[in-house]
Amino acid sequence: MLDLTVDAARLTAALVDVESVSGDEERLADLVEQALGEYPTLSVERDGNVVTARTSGDRPQRVVLAGHLDTVPIAGNLPSRLDGTTLYGCGTTDMKSGVAVMLRLAHLVGSGTVDRRTELSWVFYDCEEVEAARNGLYRLTRTAPGGLEGDLAILLEPTDGVVEGGCQGTLRVAVRTTGARAHSARSWLGANAIHAAAPVLARLAAYEPRVVDVEGLTYREGLNAVGIAGGVAGNVIPDECTVTVNYRFAPDRSEDDALAHVRDVFAGFDLDVTDSSPGARPGLDRPVAAELVAAVGGQPRAKLGWTDVARFGQLGIPAVNFGPGDPNLAHKPEEHVAVQQVLDVETALVRFLS
Amino acid sequence: MLDLTVDAARLTAALVDVESVSGDEERLADLVEQALGEYPTLSVERDGNVVTARTSGDRPQRVVLAGHLDTVPIAGNLPSRLDGTTLYGCGTTDMKSGVAVMLRLAHLVGSGTVDRRTELSWVFYDCEEVEAARNGLYRLTRTAPGGLEGDLAILLEPTDGVVEGGCQGTLRVAVRTTGARAHSARSWLGANAIHAAAPVLARLAAYEPRVVDVEGLTYREGLNAVGIAGGVAGNVIPDECTVTVNYRFAPDRSEDDALAHVRDVFAGFDLDVTDSSPGARPGLDRPVAAELVAAVGGQPRAKLGWTDVARFGQLGIPAVNFGPGDPNLAHKPEEHVAVQQVLDVETALVRFLS
Repeated sequence: MLDLTVDAARLTAALVDVESVSGDEERLADLVEQALGEYPTLSVERDGNVVTARTSGDRPQRVVLAGHLDTVPIAGNLPSRLDGTTLYGCGTTDMKSGVAVMLRLAHLVGSGTVDRRTELSWVFYDCEEVEAARNGLYRLTRTAPGGLEGDLAILLEPTDGVVEGGCQGTLRVAVRTTGARAHSARSWLGANAIHAAAPVLARLAAYEPRVVDVEGLTYREGLNAVGIAGGVAGNVIPDECTVTVNYRFAPDRSEDDALAHVRDVFAGFDLDVTDSSPGARPGLDRPVAAELVAAVGGQPRAKLGWTDVARFGQLGIPAVNFGPGDPNLAHKPEEHVAVQQVLDVETALVRFLS
Repeated sequence: MLDLTVDAARLTAALVDVESVSGDEERLADLVEQALGEYPTLSVERDGNVVTARTSGDRPQRVVLAGHLDTVPIAGNLPSRLDGTTLYGCGTTDMKSGVAVMLRLAHLVGSGTVDRRTELSWVFYDCEEVEAARNGLYRLTRTAPGGLEGDLAILLEPTDGVVEGGCQGTLRVAVRTTGARAHSARSWLGANAIHAAAPVLARLAAYEPRVVDVEGLTYREGLNAVGIAGGVAGNVIPDECTVTVNYRFAPDRSEDDALAHVRDVFAGFDLDVTDSSPGARPGLDRPVAAELVAAVGGQPRAKLGWTDVARFGQLGIPAVNFGPGDPNLAHKPEEHVAVQQVLDVETALVRFLS
């Protein structure tokens, strides 16, 4: 049984100690469902290892709080360990400290300690750290998008306690060149597909990525080869070469815009899309988002990496990332979070929501 | 027991029917050793699965005849099959028809049927179709090079009955670029090693290979990427890229010259040699070679692919390729040789040697 009356840092430790590597979230989902079930003013639902809760009053706006229950595989970093003012362990940053804040807010609202000024929804989901097809939030966007509706979504992924707006989109394409095999001792009888890729690399090397302002946040794009492969044998002129290119694009561009741009860059070459995910606008032009920024303090910044906020973006819901923990520590054996930052994020959100 | 009194085509069939995939040449080597042992004027030696024989008179020149006993793996093409005037089976071209001609010449010389005008050496060796370290001729060049000495070596590899002089050298280098890893969403924090390879491919694509005359034969060089590899993951800026380059160089260049040239082409890039074998001059400027060409007829041409003639070249012995069979049929399930060509090569060599 989870005790939601302890502070968010202690609750983080309790959550970290329930191992929940992707695919193995059932026990933690059970505990979350059970803990939320204690508050009669929250309607709690369970769908697989996704747990949702919502208030149902008549306040004019709704804020959605979202976080994933799973972690990357344990790396000798369980159970949690408190060292002075720092809590160590798998998930302390990514993102059981965020989940702890979500649960604390449920307790404070559910118990009437905090008088909420908006309606609230909570989404605890599974399988964020693995392939998108298994992602619990992705499933909800397809099977029950109504449960995600709101005026602002806050994803409590680690942002070091700074509001990070939206996210950039990501597109992966395979640029292929072809040729004709021949023995390398008679190379003129063939056509070298690796040599044919020279202009592909030249265009990438010369490419000037955009720096774009969207709703006051600065997004910095990138177009990069992330892989190249070609060759048959040491004595054969290769007949195929593939350059895998990753385009990270600002949220003023749709997936279609992004693909059209990449096709322009590689005009004249064959190109297959291997992976595409849209960006999400930061939504900081909405009053509710401005109020969040004011309550939290600090200067909001653009989220450059892709996150699940884009899933809200696809539903037309502005979404920001805001949570405790240094994202650079995520997935590392030495993962840790400053106790004070967990408490500060809770305080900031209470200020915003009450 | 091999019967060396039958014609070279029948003898080819008998040799083909003794399976001798690389590493499994013992039985065939036994049969060859035994057959040559019948001629008192030949000194026969055995070293592993290498069999050598030599005449020891006072004729002023010595010609070395060389051929390998092994074949690539059987591909449902044994036993041999005579279809009209064509003999099918594994090794018919590469190179049991050449070995048959060598044995027939041993019989004709050993029995006194042909009065040789030069001294003669025969080298039957193992493991030509596998890695160089196992090659029987290579072993001999290191352990008993004296047994290979002569004024001209004839390697009876398939050349379709045309004298092919010398061979081109081959050099393989890995051209490496490095960078610094970073998340592809923050690519400016890294340095893309694949982009850094753009000039490597550009230089290859723009390269103009030499066409060189050496002792009257035309060699056509080639400088080609035969492999390229780079990439860590779909969201990581790669910190390493390797382009494997194969330089096929005319025999007017030494291995050192070839490497110096490749270093020039890729000036500014790190480069490791992965593989290097020298070419071999055709030696057609020597009288004995000119006599071979005259006896055989036709227009000699340059050998572009690397062959074991280079091993003689390294010992300072001019060497040519001359044997029955279409080299393009080597290693194929449908491998075959025209009976008439086997007989013609025998006739040509008898004319040359008598």
